[in-house]
Formats: sequence, C-alpha cells, structure tokens
Amino acid sequence: MSTDNFAKTPKPPYYAVIFSSQRRAEEAGYGTTADRMVELAAQQPGYLGVESVRGNDGFGITVSYWQSEEHILAWKRNAEHSLARERGRNEWYEHFELRVARVERAYGGPAIEDKIKE
Amino acid sequence: MSTDNFAKTPKPPYYAVIFSSQRRAEEAGYGTTADRMVELAAQQPGYLGVESVRGNDGFGITVSYWQSEEHILAWKRNAEHSLARERGRNEWYEHFELRVARVERAYGGPAIEDKIKE
Repeated sequence: MSTDNFAKTPKPPYYAVIFSSQRRAEEAGYGTTADRMVELAAQQPGYLGVESVRGNDGFGITVSYWQSEEHILAWKRNAEHSLARERGRNEWYEHFELRVARVERAYGGPAIEDKIKE
Repeated sequence: MSTDNFAKTPKPPYYAVIFSSQRRAEEAGYGTTADRMVELAAQQPGYLGVESVRGNDGFGITVSYWQSEEHILAWKRNAEHSLARERGRNEWYEHFELRVARVERAYGGPAIEDKIKE
C-alpha cells in the first residue's frame, strides 16, 4: 500500500489551500525550493498535511491543509515562503490559481485500516 | 499559453470537491469512464469547472468546482456517476479521500490577460 501521498487530516472543519499551477520549462532552483517549502510548511503551527502531484505537461495541484485561516495567513507571512512565492511568480510559473477553502465534510475509501488488517 | 488546465471559476463563495486518489494497475474501462464523467459533470446544473492531474506513480488530484452543496449532492445522486464511483471503489482505486470545501477567497497570477496583451 502506498498511502504516503495522502494527508492524514482530522475531522472537519479545517482549511484547505488549493494551489493549481502551470510550470515553465525554467528549472533553476525550483526542485530545491519546492522541497524546502514542504519541509518548512510542515513545521508551521496549524499545519495538518499536504497532497501534491504534477503531470508531465507541467500542470500541478498542491493542496495543503490547515487548522484555521489564521494559520494560513501566518504561513503566508513567513519570510522564506514569501521569497519563494516571489520567485515562483517571476520565474517558475506560467500561471497559477490559489483558492482558500473551508473543508466541511470528508470521507475516504476503500478503508486503509481494513486492508492493512488483511 | 496553456491555460486549458485551469477552471474559470467566478468570485467566491463557491464549492470545491477535492478528490485525491491512488490508482491500482487495473486499467479496464478506467480511461473511458473517467472521460465520460468529466463530460457528464460539465452538463450538470451548478458545475463551474474542473482541474485534474495524475502523476506517474498513480496518485492523482481532481478538484471540481460547484455553485452550491446542493449541486454537489445532485451530481452524487446521478445514476451513471454512482455506478462509476462503485467501479472506482471496487476496481480502480487503491485508496481515495474526498473532501467538500467552501471556497472563501481566491486569486491568480501572473495575469493571463496581461501576458496575452504583450
């Protein structure tokens, strides 16, 4: 079972930041910075997890989960994160859309626990 | 500019269904059904758009956008969609997480319009 890709979120309500982006071909610094942002986000208060995927055409979706909007705003104000966003805007992304949403209900399947028990 | 991957959503509030899934190797019928569900969803009342990506490891995120929770529930009750979900659960997905969220704020960049004008 590969379940590492899924965020282990609590029962709603909580918040999701849905970040959709189309990358340019420009590579310089992208991978290192992206990895660092994942590491740094995980250290922030209120962080609940992240799910992320990018296709071969350079289009990607990253959803990070947070306890509250206040935690999201604090992460936005993080200095290193702000610099990374500026580079993203200028160098790495052809276009992006960011949406902040309140998760109201959630469910999963087939049950991981049941499958692990087998 | 490849902007077809982005949903052209209105100003918030509106709703997002965040569907994260890990596919199995099983292929039979998956592609046809997935394409059909995208086509069918787009015909539903309250549908605003979709963004979707799957990586080479079989992990994918699809976010569909809707005017209201009632529209999401109506789409869930669609008979053809219900059958497809049942196949997904039994055949195609090792695991999935589905989250329904209310989008409260949103912004994009760099501006597509400005770039097209250049």
